[in-house]
Amino acid sequence: MRTVEAYFEDYEIGSSRSTTGRTVTEADIVLHAGQTGDFFPHHMDAEWCATQPFGQRIAHGTLIMSMAVGMTAGDINPRATSYGYDRVRFVRPVFIGDTIAVRAEITAIRDHKRRPDQLGQVDETVTVTNQHGAVVLSLVHLYVVEKRPTDEPGPTETPA
Amino acid sequence: MRTVEAYFEDYEIGSSRSTTGRTVTEADIVLHAGQTGDFFPHHMDAEWCATQPFGQRIAHGTLIMSMAVGMTAGDINPRATSYGYDRVRFVRPVFIGDTIAVRAEITAIRDHKRRPDQLGQVDETVTVTNQHGAVVLSLVHLYVVEKRPTDEPGPTETPA
Amino acid sequence: MRTVEAYFEDYEIGSSRSTTGRTVTEADIVLHAGQTGDFFPHHMDAEWCATQPFGQRIAHGTLIMSMAVGMTAGDINPRATSYGYDRVRFVRPVFIGDTIAVRAEITAIRDHKRRPDQLGQVDETVTVTNQHGAVVLSLVHLYVVEKRPTDEPGPTETPA
Amino acid sequence: MRTVEAYFEDYEIGSSRSTTGRTVTEADIVLHAGQTGDFFPHHMDAEWCATQPFGQRIAHGTLIMSMAVGMTAGDINPRATSYGYDRVRFVRPVFIGDTIAVRAEITAIRDHKRRPDQLGQVDETVTVTNQHGAVVLSLVHLYVVEKRPTDEPGPTETPA
Amino acid sequence: MRTVEAYFEDYEIGSSRSTTGRTVTEADIVLHAGQTGDFFPHHMDAEWCATQPFGQRIAHGTLIMSMAVGMTAGDINPRATSYGYDRVRFVRPVFIGDTIAVRAEITAIRDHKRRPDQLGQVDETVTVTNQHGAVVLSLVHLYVVEKRPTDEPGPTETPA
Amino acid sequence: MRTVEAYFEDYEIGSSRSTTGRTVTEADIVLHAGQTGDFFPHHMDAEWCATQPFGQRIAHGTLIMSMAVGMTAGDINPRATSYGYDRVRFVRPVFIGDTIAVRAEITAIRDHKRRPDQLGQVDETVTVTNQHGAVVLSLVHLYVVEKRPTDEPGPTETPA
Repeated sequence: MRTVEAYFEDYEIGSSRSTTGRTVTEADIVLHAGQTGDFFPHHMDAEWCATQPFGQRIAHGTLIMSMAVGMTAGDINPRATSYGYDRVRFVRPVFIGDTIAVRAEITAIRDHKRRPDQLGQVDETVTVTNQHGAVVLSLVHLYVVEKRPTDEPGPTETPA
Repeated sequence: MRTVEAYFEDYEIGSSRSTTGRTVTEADIVLHAGQTGDFFPHHMDAEWCATQPFGQRIAHGTLIMSMAVGMTAGDINPRATSYGYDRVRFVRPVFIGDTIAVRAEITAIRDHKRRPDQLGQVDETVTVTNQHGAVVLSLVHLYVVEKRPTDEPGPTETPA
Repeated sequence: MRTVEAYFEDYEIGSSRSTTGRTVTEADIVLHAGQTGDFFPHHMDAEWCATQPFGQRIAHGTLIMSMAVGMTAGDINPRATSYGYDRVRFVRPVFIGDTIAVRAEITAIRDHKRRPDQLGQVDETVTVTNQHGAVVLSLVHLYVVEKRPTDEPGPTETPA
Repeated sequence: MRTVEAYFEDYEIGSSRSTTGRTVTEADIVLHAGQTGDFFPHHMDAEWCATQPFGQRIAHGTLIMSMAVGMTAGDINPRATSYGYDRVRFVRPVFIGDTIAVRAEITAIRDHKRRPDQLGQVDETVTVTNQHGAVVLSLVHLYVVEKRPTDEPGPTETPA
Repeated sequence: MRTVEAYFEDYEIGSSRSTTGRTVTEADIVLHAGQTGDFFPHHMDAEWCATQPFGQRIAHGTLIMSMAVGMTAGDINPRATSYGYDRVRFVRPVFIGDTIAVRAEITAIRDHKRRPDQLGQVDETVTVTNQHGAVVLSLVHLYVVEKRPTDEPGPTETPA
Repeated sequence: MRTVEAYFEDYEIGSSRSTTGRTVTEADIVLHAGQTGDFFPHHMDAEWCATQPFGQRIAHGTLIMSMAVGMTAGDINPRATSYGYDRVRFVRPVFIGDTIAVRAEITAIRDHKRRPDQLGQVDETVTVTNQHGAVVLSLVHLYVVEKRPTDEPGPTETPA
């Protein structure tokens, strides 16, 4: 975890980053049920799932989303604030033993509506794939980022 | 947890449900960091947070979202599938010791674009408030719901 | 989770409810060992268990009991208080991967000994079965329930 | 954790053992809710609890019972099997920050009904007290214990 | 867990103790990643591990070390303090499903450098083996132990 | 988490890195007791601790060590392998609510004894301090690092 200061001007459409993989385990599902209180049989009852079209237990949508967002939380940017998500879509189910990886790409950059002199908005499209390369989840992560003060030089990295 | 069959025709705009409250604890944040790998100091470093404008540790956005969605997971509807979220917005920070409650209201109902004869889409607006009644998170939960077959009677409840 | 007010007069011998299933996972056993401090090899040492008559790791009795009681915690009744259990019996071992389900039936109703005008006692027999339909645990859950005040109408449900 | 072989003949009415204390934490309650799926506001909603006679969150009964039984799981006796509990009574609520300790005393010894030549039954009364010395939980832990074969010497300890 | 008072004079080179086994589970690794924040693909990404010489996910070194030290924490000695470890060596990887056991042997006893009249130092060599009998971890656990006051009799055990 | 290839020749004595802070919580201690099975009253019994010189519960040594090592697990170096620790010393207790930070400095570099042509050894001294700047733990983390093949250019970073 490093602190890397980046101002609005440092973001570029099309720049992207990719994570290493993470295997979604039965333990993750058990812990997520425990954290959320969602013990729906779709996640918890292997016998019933075996009678359903999907055939086996499915990870909670909020689990995959939380894991994916966490996997992109690599560098701390003190100039950016996350304020929400748009178009969160669960495209395919994630099963126990699947391994997910995340790609995040800057897909939109625009001035902040109310404070265009000081702030900008940055959209990062997060795409989660499984071990077969198939997309399981996509979403747009929304950031507000400070614009560089006129007397400030380029990006600074504090390695940690 | 009950199984309550409800078809598209059973949903009405404006109908709503509310949950009991849940206190967000330090343990929840520790467990969510552990589940997601997001150990940003905003969530984990009380000393640093004390030097920041928000003054204390903040719950992860995905934690509050996961808890809130879980709190609404009361009845199983075998006719409905959750496929995503729109307009997820973190309106205010949630601190350790805050108690959240959730209200979910059906806010849009429409035919499914590709299969309007069999399916409909239902939007449920989820609003999370803290113990002061202030909104901390809102989102729209998206469902696809089966339309009632022509030979089928009204909603059925299997109490559990 | 709904709040459903039910007075003593609303309970009937023979009325019952059944839960969906829950698969008992290795993670559940690991977490229960961690919560209780019981790391007996019967639960934790697959190698040693393979040399024993039961052949594999066994879930803690208190784990199955805690899960089963939790699975019946569906509706909140502000008029009832749980005060204990009688005749808790571990009938068969539960192994990793077994799926349990719970049936709870009202089996006894009687006046409270010291305050018969205001309170009654309700016994709910909880039976836990595995995926083969075999009973693994039974117990009697003991409740004290308020009697309906003379000026009060029938049961009220606050859906949530 | 030691393995200490004890046959039925080695148990004596009135013999007892006591544990060190354990503080019941908010994290324990969060983890137990997560393990059982019981998110009743009595355990999880500090705001609502503050409006109730008990005034604050209460530990789940099954949590205190599981912790107490675990605290007595010190020595492994390969000659004894736990088969259930009788008269589990929650005498007082346990609050976050309370410290419990357990005393276990052999209170009954009798021949096994169906196999009196080979087996005996041993009742151990488990009493859980809080930091004020007040009883919060009591139960009777039921064991079946092998009788000593005629050619076998006294108890053996394998320290570990 | 028992409290067993032992003074420096009660320790003997060559005396040893051995634990029962514990199977290292996928859940343990998930929980340790969550506790430490170490989500390296060596521990979390089954797909990538399959492409590496070791072929499968490996338990964190600090997990095996923490488990092993915990497995030796059987008796409380109020006269001894643990102050560190020397020569911690990860000899072989531990995989999911391996079962470890621990042997601890007193391997050095000497007077404390600065307070030889009151204190001594005791080294306990901890050796962790897997189900094949192969060493996976060794370390030296370092204790400072009080010397017996001249007016004090032999060791006392408070069974618990 | 990034993958940063660094060969033996890329390490320099005196180069260092520092982490952000992490507050040690009651939940961390509860989880560590659960992971290790070490429920000693020093960590779990607030009442007893209040009667001791240290006055309050103390984090397990292996918890602080595991957290600290995890906090330094920022970049993956496929050319380096961790094989152990030397001189692990618990200098001061860590209490609930303390915030630790870690500094890691390369303090020794030498050829590998048996394969000096291909491998080197690198010692990284890890120092953990609390919010008062006092050292609570120090250790030396031991790595074996590949030497750069003669046909290989300088360090490569694969950002993630």
